[in-house]
Amino acid sequence: MSRRILGIDPGSRITGFGVIDVIGQQRHYVASGCIRTPQGAPLAERIKVIVDGLFGVVDTYRPGEAAVEQVFVNVNPAATLMLGQARGAVLAALVLKQLTVAEYTALQVKQSVVGHGKAPKEQVQAMIVRLLNLSGTPQADAADALAVALAHANHSHAAVAAFTRQGLRVKGGRLA
Amino acid sequence: MSRRILGIDPGSRITGFGVIDVIGQQRHYVASGCIRTPQGAPLAERIKVIVDGLFGVVDTYRPGEAAVEQVFVNVNPAATLMLGQARGAVLAALVLKQLTVAEYTALQVKQSVVGHGKAPKEQVQAMIVRLLNLSGTPQADAADALAVALAHANHSHAAVAAFTRQGLRVKGGRLA
Repeated sequence: MSRRILGIDPGSRITGFGVIDVIGQQRHYVASGCIRTPQGAPLAERIKVIVDGLFGVVDTYRPGEAAVEQVFVNVNPAATLMLGQARGAVLAALVLKQLTVAEYTALQVKQSVVGHGKAPKEQVQAMIVRLLNLSGTPQADAADALAVALAHANHSHAAVAAFTRQGLRVKGGRLA
Repeated sequence: MSRRILGIDPGSRITGFGVIDVIGQQRHYVASGCIRTPQGAPLAERIKVIVDGLFGVVDTYRPGEAAVEQVFVNVNPAATLMLGQARGAVLAALVLKQLTVAEYTALQVKQSVVGHGKAPKEQVQAMIVRLLNLSGTPQADAADALAVALAHANHSHAAVAAFTRQGLRVKGGRLA
């Protein structure tokens, strides 16, 4: 059974996206890229670019589920607000496309993909290249989005496994 | 010529909306209310409630333009992020409904509606009741949204007048 996951790294200037297929323990690269918002344009226009861009990605690659990185809360309130607005638009676009949306912190993503939460960006990029057998290194935001998708693949697989084990315990060892 | 304006006061828990008709110098109340997000629900679900709620408002009242209050940047970064996310979802919903979106700060709204920017909430509510000939006082977030719509009616009227004057100056007094 194959699952197609869309990972998103939201940003006020660049929103990275990455699509992977999960077939058993295998992960296959499908697509990745960046949605860039026009700097200096009115906010509504930038929001429209994000929403239209994500609609295009979802319509093209038809993922079955989505995972979004929980953004860094900046010390600069205006930057935090701007990032929140971009992220709100991302979530609006995904729920409008009927996708379930999981959320992961940057720490969770790094722990899942690299094995420890303090890994630098370059190490995440290198791991993405290795795990997905890429011939080149994706742009940083696209790599982060692919990392979110991979983290979701690992996490939700673990969650399903844990649920199954728990289900068996609850059932007292009998299979329903 | 009549214009129908949708005003929005975005919030992470309650998003107020207000719809008015502008006919010349007259402003008529059409509708107002609140979209409440389920507390404790996952973020994607709360975003969906905001987007679906606004789609319902736009489909029901069919405004020709929208105005959104620029939110207060909180000292609490997590609250600012949450507010930004709600506001991003609001903007996404409005641009998806092909509405032009204007933005006003709370200061601009109060100056436009009450005459000075330091007016307390109760004074704004009382002015809304008076300006729109309401028989009761709307809930605070709905009143704020109506105030944003009124501010947009005043501002855009002034902007059009200023543009017309400027246009005439540029044309050296001749009417095109």
